[in-house]
Amino acid sequence: MKSFRKELWFNVPSRRGFIDITPAVERCLAESGIVEGLVLVNAMHITASVFINDDEAGLHQDYDDWLERLAPHEPVSQYRHNRTGEDNGDAHLKRQVMGREVVVAVTDRRLDFGPWERIFYGEFDGRRKKRVLVKIIGQ
Amino acid sequence: MKSFRKELWFNVPSRRGFIDITPAVERCLAESGIVEGLVLVNAMHITASVFINDDEAGLHQDYDDWLERLAPHEPVSQYRHNRTGEDNGDAHLKRQVMGREVVVAVTDRRLDFGPWERIFYGEFDGRRKKRVLVKIIGQ
Amino acid sequence: MKSFRKELWFNVPSRRGFIDITPAVERCLAESGIVEGLVLVNAMHITASVFINDDEAGLHQDYDDWLERLAPHEPVSQYRHNRTGEDNGDAHLKRQVMGREVVVAVTDRRLDFGPWERIFYGEFDGRRKKRVLVKIIGQ
Repeated sequence: MKSFRKELWFNVPSRRGFIDITPAVERCLAESGIVEGLVLVNAMHITASVFINDDEAGLHQDYDDWLERLAPHEPVSQYRHNRTGEDNGDAHLKRQVMGREVVVAVTDRRLDFGPWERIFYGEFDGRRKKRVLVKIIGQ
Repeated sequence: MKSFRKELWFNVPSRRGFIDITPAVERCLAESGIVEGLVLVNAMHITASVFINDDEAGLHQDYDDWLERLAPHEPVSQYRHNRTGEDNGDAHLKRQVMGREVVVAVTDRRLDFGPWERIFYGEFDGRRKKRVLVKIIGQ
Repeated sequence: MKSFRKELWFNVPSRRGFIDITPAVERCLAESGIVEGLVLVNAMHITASVFINDDEAGLHQDYDDWLERLAPHEPVSQYRHNRTGEDNGDAHLKRQVMGREVVVAVTDRRLDFGPWERIFYGEFDGRRKKRVLVKIIGQ
């Protein structure tokens, strides 16, 4: 069994944003030399997500509007978590809806994807450097 | 390390529906010959889910009602994504709540499940052929 | 390839609660002797979650309040599932928001975590013994 590990770093300039990280994950897979196996891609922070969906700007705005309805940022006083001095209580909730991680099959050296699948980093408390872990196991 | 891959195809005749795919995943596992490892089961489409829960018709109706409250299909004009000519903006949101994939342990040639765990395909934009990927790695 | 399996048992004395199970998962990893690989940690019950987030009591109360807004326990008659004699329809919905499982990388014998990541068992229908599965594969 072979294994590969790499951290990807991001600094989203706004509080929230989505980044297509598929090319970066594909580069990791090529570097790993793994032909058959599984790729785990996870946010290493608890106010961010990794998820798979469509690379379509309107949809990303829909996600942002919807997550704001489900778990609004303001008023920050509505979250007990923010009594610790944070203002990111909403980000911990939004991240649960969108998920921490994806696991993707590796088949014949490639991400084994349907036609529209793309991997996104979802930032809900940005304006600082944060990390995603790519771990690949296989042969 | 051994690996196995198979696609399962579905055509749900209505817009939304849930299908118990546990027997199909069990057949994949038997075919793979893998004794110990992990099974990944994921929707290959971004308006569908694979999730684990109870095989109970009332619960499935509860899920459908609840997802319609969280992300209603109508009016389709509420989603920017639908300005592309689609009418499935809601399906991209519903799928995030229910999830893209499950990872299940394989122990002694069997899906290592609690008493009520069943794997479902959740369709949110049906009436066409769509796929699920089963990938098994192990020994 | 090596594999390891262990069940962790919990009995949350109230209907809902969160337990930090990171130390228990770390003990499994040490016992397994696995150096590089993946850990799957999943609820074996369909009214409970395993998820990764912050060990902060205010946040856990925020999660509980939020999940009660998204899928209230009362009135129990609002869920068709409860016509079967159950009163846990809400728990099946809450679990979908928080997730069934996490997959964590194992690197150099350790859970490969960002600074604040902790693994929690989320109980939504407690007051009885329930299980989590830890499955580790790797080398």
